[in-house]
Amino acid sequence: MIKNITNVRGITCWGAHTGVKSMRRDLAIIFSKVPASAAATFTLNQVVAEPVKLTKKHISDGMAQAIVINAGNANAATGEQGREGAEAMAQTMADELGIKKELVMVASTGVIGVPFPTGDIVNGIRENVKKLTNKSTAGTFAANAILTTDTFAKEGFVEFEVDGREINMGAIAKGSGMIHPNMATMLAFILTDVAIEPNLLKEAVSDAVKKSFNMITVDGDTSTNDMVVVLANGLAQNEVLKTKKDSDYKVFKENLEKMMEHLAQQIVLDGEGASKFIEYEILNAPSEDYARKMIREISDSTLVKTAMFGRDPNWGRIISAAGNAGLPFNYEEADLYLGADKKDVQVLKKGIPLEYDRNYLKKLLRESHLKIKLDLHNGKSAARGWGTDMTTDYVLFNSVYTT
Amino acid sequence: MIKNITNVRGITCWGAHTGVKSMRRDLAIIFSKVPASAAATFTLNQVVAEPVKLTKKHISDGMAQAIVINAGNANAATGEQGREGAEAMAQTMADELGIKKELVMVASTGVIGVPFPTGDIVNGIRENVKKLTNKSTAGTFAANAILTTDTFAKEGFVEFEVDGREINMGAIAKGSGMIHPNMATMLAFILTDVAIEPNLLKEAVSDAVKKSFNMITVDGDTSTNDMVVVLANGLAQNEVLKTKKDSDYKVFKENLEKMMEHLAQQIVLDGEGASKFIEYEILNAPSEDYARKMIREISDSTLVKTAMFGRDPNWGRIISAAGNAGLPFNYEEADLYLGADKKDVQVLKKGIPLEYDRNYLKKLLRESHLKIKLDLHNGKSAARGWGTDMTTDYVLFNSVYTT
Repeated sequence: MIKNITNVRGITCWGAHTGVKSMRRDLAIIFSKVPASAAATFTLNQVVAEPVKLTKKHISDGMAQAIVINAGNANAATGEQGREGAEAMAQTMADELGIKKELVMVASTGVIGVPFPTGDIVNGIRENVKKLTNKSTAGTFAANAILTTDTFAKEGFVEFEVDGREINMGAIAKGSGMIHPNMATMLAFILTDVAIEPNLLKEAVSDAVKKSFNMITVDGDTSTNDMVVVLANGLAQNEVLKTKKDSDYKVFKENLEKMMEHLAQQIVLDGEGASKFIEYEILNAPSEDYARKMIREISDSTLVKTAMFGRDPNWGRIISAAGNAGLPFNYEEADLYLGADKKDVQVLKKGIPLEYDRNYLKKLLRESHLKIKLDLHNGKSAARGWGTDMTTDYVLFNSVYTT
Repeated sequence: MIKNITNVRGITCWGAHTGVKSMRRDLAIIFSKVPASAAATFTLNQVVAEPVKLTKKHISDGMAQAIVINAGNANAATGEQGREGAEAMAQTMADELGIKKELVMVASTGVIGVPFPTGDIVNGIRENVKKLTNKSTAGTFAANAILTTDTFAKEGFVEFEVDGREINMGAIAKGSGMIHPNMATMLAFILTDVAIEPNLLKEAVSDAVKKSFNMITVDGDTSTNDMVVVLANGLAQNEVLKTKKDSDYKVFKENLEKMMEHLAQQIVLDGEGASKFIEYEILNAPSEDYARKMIREISDSTLVKTAMFGRDPNWGRIISAAGNAGLPFNYEEADLYLGADKKDVQVLKKGIPLEYDRNYLKKLLRESHLKIKLDLHNGKSAARGWGTDMTTDYVLFNSVYTT
């Protein structure tokens, strides 16, 4: 009744409780009836979890058929024992499903540096592979089984047309809880039945991640386990997408970006200790990279984030953060708009402060979805990004939580 | 990207954390732009929670415009203090929204017999009414804010046509956790933009509840707080549905039943301590009431439930439970089928045991979704119901949990 990953042709899944987490589902399994084109991006943290290392290796040929994710233990900083655990997860999946081990992607999320409970998880896989189904609830179970400190499951589903064929794209994701940095992993798994060449998929994924997951900030940290995986199994039977010139590729790409943007926003919206969701937009920048870099600087600024918590239309902090981005920036050409989603107030025009109704703007800043828009009048590129405010709760939590 | 209650015309909502539950959302607010036709069914338990009493009173004229639900405290067995708390919830909603108090429905779920935290909840309402929005995430927040021991949020959404107009119907629900009977409340809130007369809606709701929520069993208990509320605000602007003869009414009714069946199944699927979901179907019974009563008897039978946990095709227990329903029943006319969803094995034909592949059936019974079908050859009515198995975990949990 709610469409999810189980509405993608050939996709079955399950979410189960193995006992690693108390009373909550902690194991998700996703299977594609046929091998799929696969692409992924991974954490840039120097400490890399064992499942990330293994999945990087397995995905190198651009093909995958199954994904297994455990929650409760990150399998990071676990050494040889952890490496064997990740291998055992892939091997057990392969044995139970009758597929090659190299077609299995492995992901983990949870506490870092705790011995990996290989036995429980391997038993869990054996017991639950036979429950794989395309029933809608299985999608819900899977979406819930990958959560850690998340307060809600993150899912997405979209339908569109390519080559006259209906394409389904579904996804599950988990986000980062600010107050438990050990579990602040971001995972996203996107499944689609479009037919597309692995190399082209790789390009699409890498570009879409830049515009979405890389444009969110909760606390600026990157975990040891971050992973975005996309599987495209071709069961929609459209003519295989092969080049960027293909007009159908554009449709696919747009929908992939829309999906990733949605998941990224869901993750920000679940930022613990945050009270507001803030969308940043930069218009008329010299390049997209420029615009993105500037957004990241502003959205990571503690001064900007605390001002938004305090409903303080202190736009000077925004301009100041923009000036700190290590980019050429002439604020005397810039227009700045502040406010809530779809209702904003221009506070700066070509660098000159405008008169505005301060009480009205303060009222807008009380809303839960804020918007900060900077028009640079210095080019034709644009970018968007998403972040949170910084609350007294955040500081309190992080000051008492021993990590 | 996932359609939910926010896709119903005129519906805004929010889900927030007031502090009654630690670190989890615990307050949901739902608002219809215009007053809506409203109908509800309530718990039959003799101990009735304060919000149930109040909502019964407020809905008596068949109209409602807002719903407020708190989780963490059931406001049951709380006496005068609780009564005032429920009144305060309705009054605060009315004041903040500028509507009549009688248009506010109030629901609670959580621990029974604990003083009601009126102050926190009233403050929470004041603070969060201004966040009401039709953004999709607000629907997710609301769905999550009504949970107690649930392991996943329960939502539904369906579109259909009435009088050439697209009708949207969305819902959120929470289920019963077996091992915390104090919190085993079942709540469901269904919002739709169809235009329908209150009396006709009442009839539709009462009948659909009989076929859905009343046909599920997890542990056979009814809580003090159970409530199913349906609001139909008419913003789809179809010609108002007025009589059962209306062919469009049939379409609406079917979709309402489908929605309730979906939510009821989601609740069973989240039955804690259960390992299997079991669908029961009785065919060719003398009447629907007969068939429903027999299903309830079988699905509540401890012997049947433990057999299903043990994957034991011990069909004698099913026939025996059917014989215990207080209904005339001649098993020598009956056919019985056992197995998994869409794959079953006939074990009884006109009362005579059939030879069957016991190993194959035992294998089917390992699946997570089982099906038990009884054909009575004794009439033309049918019914379905849903339940769980009974596991050693269930017994263990309930033996150590002090209620």
